[in-house]
Amino acid sequence: MPQLRLALNQIDATVGDLDGNADAVVRWTRHAADRGAHFVAFPEMVLTGYPVEDLALRSSFVEASCAALRALAGRLAAEGLGGTPVLVGYLDRSGERHRYGQPAGSPKDAAAVLHRGEVVLTFAKHHLPNYGVFDEFRYFVPGDTMPVVRVAGVDVALAICEDLWQDGGRVPSARIAGAGLLVTVNASPYELNKDDTRLELVRKRAQEAGCTTAYVAMTGGQDELVYDGDSIVVDGRGEVVARAAQFTEECLLVDLDLPAAPAEPPAGIADDGLRIEHVTLSAEPVAPYTRRYAGVVAESLGDEEEMYTALVTGLRAYVTKNGFRSVLIGLSGGIDSSLVAAVACDALGAEQVYGISMPSRYSSRHSRDDAAELARRTGLHLRGVPIGPMFDAYMESLGLTGLAEENLQSRLRGTLLMAVSNQEGPLVLAPGNKSELAVGYSTLYGDSVGAYGPIKDVYKSVVFRLAKWRNAAAAERNEIPPIPENSISKPPSAELRPDQLDTDSLPDYDVLDAILELYVDRDRGSAEIVARGYDPELVERVLRMVDTAEYKRRQYPPGTKISPKGFGKDRRLPITNRWRERA
Amino acid sequence: MPQLRLALNQIDATVGDLDGNADAVVRWTRHAADRGAHFVAFPEMVLTGYPVEDLALRSSFVEASCAALRALAGRLAAEGLGGTPVLVGYLDRSGERHRYGQPAGSPKDAAAVLHRGEVVLTFAKHHLPNYGVFDEFRYFVPGDTMPVVRVAGVDVALAICEDLWQDGGRVPSARIAGAGLLVTVNASPYELNKDDTRLELVRKRAQEAGCTTAYVAMTGGQDELVYDGDSIVVDGRGEVVARAAQFTEECLLVDLDLPAAPAEPPAGIADDGLRIEHVTLSAEPVAPYTRRYAGVVAESLGDEEEMYTALVTGLRAYVTKNGFRSVLIGLSGGIDSSLVAAVACDALGAEQVYGISMPSRYSSRHSRDDAAELARRTGLHLRGVPIGPMFDAYMESLGLTGLAEENLQSRLRGTLLMAVSNQEGPLVLAPGNKSELAVGYSTLYGDSVGAYGPIKDVYKSVVFRLAKWRNAAAAERNEIPPIPENSISKPPSAELRPDQLDTDSLPDYDVLDAILELYVDRDRGSAEIVARGYDPELVERVLRMVDTAEYKRRQYPPGTKISPKGFGKDRRLPITNRWRERA
Repeated sequence: MPQLRLALNQIDATVGDLDGNADAVVRWTRHAADRGAHFVAFPEMVLTGYPVEDLALRSSFVEASCAALRALAGRLAAEGLGGTPVLVGYLDRSGERHRYGQPAGSPKDAAAVLHRGEVVLTFAKHHLPNYGVFDEFRYFVPGDTMPVVRVAGVDVALAICEDLWQDGGRVPSARIAGAGLLVTVNASPYELNKDDTRLELVRKRAQEAGCTTAYVAMTGGQDELVYDGDSIVVDGRGEVVARAAQFTEECLLVDLDLPAAPAEPPAGIADDGLRIEHVTLSAEPVAPYTRRYAGVVAESLGDEEEMYTALVTGLRAYVTKNGFRSVLIGLSGGIDSSLVAAVACDALGAEQVYGISMPSRYSSRHSRDDAAELARRTGLHLRGVPIGPMFDAYMESLGLTGLAEENLQSRLRGTLLMAVSNQEGPLVLAPGNKSELAVGYSTLYGDSVGAYGPIKDVYKSVVFRLAKWRNAAAAERNEIPPIPENSISKPPSAELRPDQLDTDSLPDYDVLDAILELYVDRDRGSAEIVARGYDPELVERVLRMVDTAEYKRRQYPPGTKISPKGFGKDRRLPITNRWRERA
Repeated sequence: MPQLRLALNQIDATVGDLDGNADAVVRWTRHAADRGAHFVAFPEMVLTGYPVEDLALRSSFVEASCAALRALAGRLAAEGLGGTPVLVGYLDRSGERHRYGQPAGSPKDAAAVLHRGEVVLTFAKHHLPNYGVFDEFRYFVPGDTMPVVRVAGVDVALAICEDLWQDGGRVPSARIAGAGLLVTVNASPYELNKDDTRLELVRKRAQEAGCTTAYVAMTGGQDELVYDGDSIVVDGRGEVVARAAQFTEECLLVDLDLPAAPAEPPAGIADDGLRIEHVTLSAEPVAPYTRRYAGVVAESLGDEEEMYTALVTGLRAYVTKNGFRSVLIGLSGGIDSSLVAAVACDALGAEQVYGISMPSRYSSRHSRDDAAELARRTGLHLRGVPIGPMFDAYMESLGLTGLAEENLQSRLRGTLLMAVSNQEGPLVLAPGNKSELAVGYSTLYGDSVGAYGPIKDVYKSVVFRLAKWRNAAAAERNEIPPIPENSISKPPSAELRPDQLDTDSLPDYDVLDAILELYVDRDRGSAEIVARGYDPELVERVLRMVDTAEYKRRQYPPGTKISPKGFGKDRRLPITNRWRERA
């Protein structure tokens, strides 16, 4: 059997940064070539970053991507890396008219094989996702070829991301084409437990394709999305050969023994209308060599560690890719802002994290103590600015009462944070969690102020779990647990009026979150939720809160998605909406 | 030739308000039946409102829509209206698997004919738009039938909205089926000059169909979208027979002489795979009668009146459909807030419009005078609350300078407006225009505060045109022009530092808006813009401002779309984006 050393470069890419992304491709190709790789694969649209959204509709950007691809092929050769075939995702244009009605020249989610200074083969994604956060029918012409490259005497079939998630198309086609290896390039956003789904899927597809199947994943973050890596190689019986770690940039190298390609290259129509396009790069197997990379199988992370690492990755990507270094957080001593601060310290280093305690007359003694304790434990910078004088100035002019008075305090803090941000430069982080966002338990332009909401897709009950996990992880490493015990154990309160508690307005978070998960994440109606044993009046009240808070969510900052349905592009509801679920 | 009195009920609908929308259908059906109509048509998805967005993914809502349709059929009959066939748009479910990969049970954008208490025919939209503000591939299974109902001896072919905008499908099929009349139901969002496009399209399609073609349109507003009515009837040669007014609810009645249906009902496959589905409701022509409705052809509005009326319609819909009555506006005496106030007075009545003048030390004398003059002219409520004390409280605590000091003033006003809104109830309106939003010339959580931004899709140069038009229209009617002359004639200024002018930071608005229109609305790259004669450095600077202001737009309130590409669902760009156009 011919041997092949495969390199899956699981790397980060930044949307729009054609130069920077090309640099990364060259750097990681050299890393792989130095280690003797025969075929090097990068993630989906690594050259442009993913998703590019409406940049795909700007022809200047599409042309720039095509030009960058050609330049990259030349540069790899010029730097002595032309001998190794490199598979790179990019944004291409098409000559055809879009089958869904878009005009000629519509773009393609494409990938290319670069070899000896040339672009030797290009192809486009066949199955286009148009659900959840995906809008690919909006942009792309689907591909209609089944690409196969012969490398070192092995036929390598190629596919892009969603082609693996849908039945039909390139996977059965790979079997028909008699491929010895199937390589898929991906940029699949993180969701909790998606790694398990993904592994099962790759195993199933490898068995369908009847050959070793490699899945190269993106890592890093882009706006609300996080890519968790987890590149995988599985053999034709579905056994895992190698698996990269989650949330890291790395080159997964593996030595494979693969079936020799047939004498006659495959041709014709494979399946689902796909025309086989075969290119021979090197027909002869490489000289036999000693296996060095048997395949490392990284352990996947536990749920809490996985979610927490996703939050760290998402925040770090947003801050640094947008050209910032530091962040500013209003610290109330509560669990939400404390968790956000811990995530920020892990993402950027405590020296880049600035906290402000902004007590009012309703702030408890322990609030200030807990914020100070958080600063002591983590090493973040803390200052205190009481909001009393600003509060008095407004109250003297306007004489506010009730909710208006409560919201005023929150908005004074928002204005204070933005003033310090404008004066000193750090990005403000919003501390809202998913439970609050769902029911509108927050003040627009108050505690919702910020460039990024690191925990906006984390239910309050999970906020507690993550805080406890982070402290326990620190204790295990003999480090100081970052989050004060009191911030975890005290009953949650907004402290906007005397003795206020969250439970004055909301049910217990365990009950609330269970109802929200059914309604928000799984689109269940009230009858189905009540049928699971929840009180009908409570269900109706919670669902009404969710429906009427849509306007607040629309103006909330972006934040890391970790669930199947975050309050971002994956949940699109009208604000003007008189539909009310009735139990 | 058989006669037929056709009624096109061009009405408003509210998303999610199944009861209210059904009431409107009954009320307007009675109106048409009282006037002897033989066939009554309503807009696309009139029963659910349009667009329902992700409500389509909640099966409880889909089931409720289907139940509401059956109930409506029964109620029409019970109220003595069962004898007249009624065509109603609604949301249906499908048994099939979605051809684009959605699961079985996926919804359909459907319409039904109701007659004698029964749902006698249903069909679904064939062409699904998935560009601009539309995401219909996300939701809907496309229809695969060509429905024809025989009414009073005439075969009436039916279609939904986008079916008319795309070549192929139901329009040529109507000719193949030998229909005597084609009726299309629509909910087509307003854009400037779309009425001209629409008329030409209906004329072209009528000629292709070879029969009289009726287009029934929605009117009113839903979040950012406005429907401008403009229902049309065109004969088979493309001549306009009748045309409803823009932005009004009305029943367009027209007496038509139509070819008799063939003895043998059409059957088989028409075109584009569409299976003809024919139902006979009444095979005999009605007894000859005297024509009473020859067809009124309403004049279309001039550009300024059309845009202004769209703004009034959009704002009124947002406020009233969300259960509010009054609005609150920060009045600086400038042209933007003055135009917003004029629109609000026209939408809700001046007694429901509250203005606050919030002068700072940098506010000019004329600012306060102009705001007072606006109140005198329109009759809106005005009060003044100086922000000096709040400003001093912050400055003493934080010692801000430069941009931080400028933004502070704007945010103090935002907080003040929200406090009054919380205390007294009116919705806050944001006065930002499209030029400001494009280049980020606004303060996040400051002048961007609000539930709705009535002029967010209006370039500054158009703001001037609309203000002048509104004043001239008043003068023509011998009314007091609402907007003070000085607000129109003085040079624009944010008044956040001494002697500040917009032109300190921005080019003249005529130049700026021309560049923005090319970049934002038409997705042209910098090379193309420079080729039109604009200074390369200026183009690069403007485009960079647009790119880096994405984060501000993401948190801006919704507002009425009047252009081909508003800053809403029709422009989806990443915030994290290193792509920069270079001239």
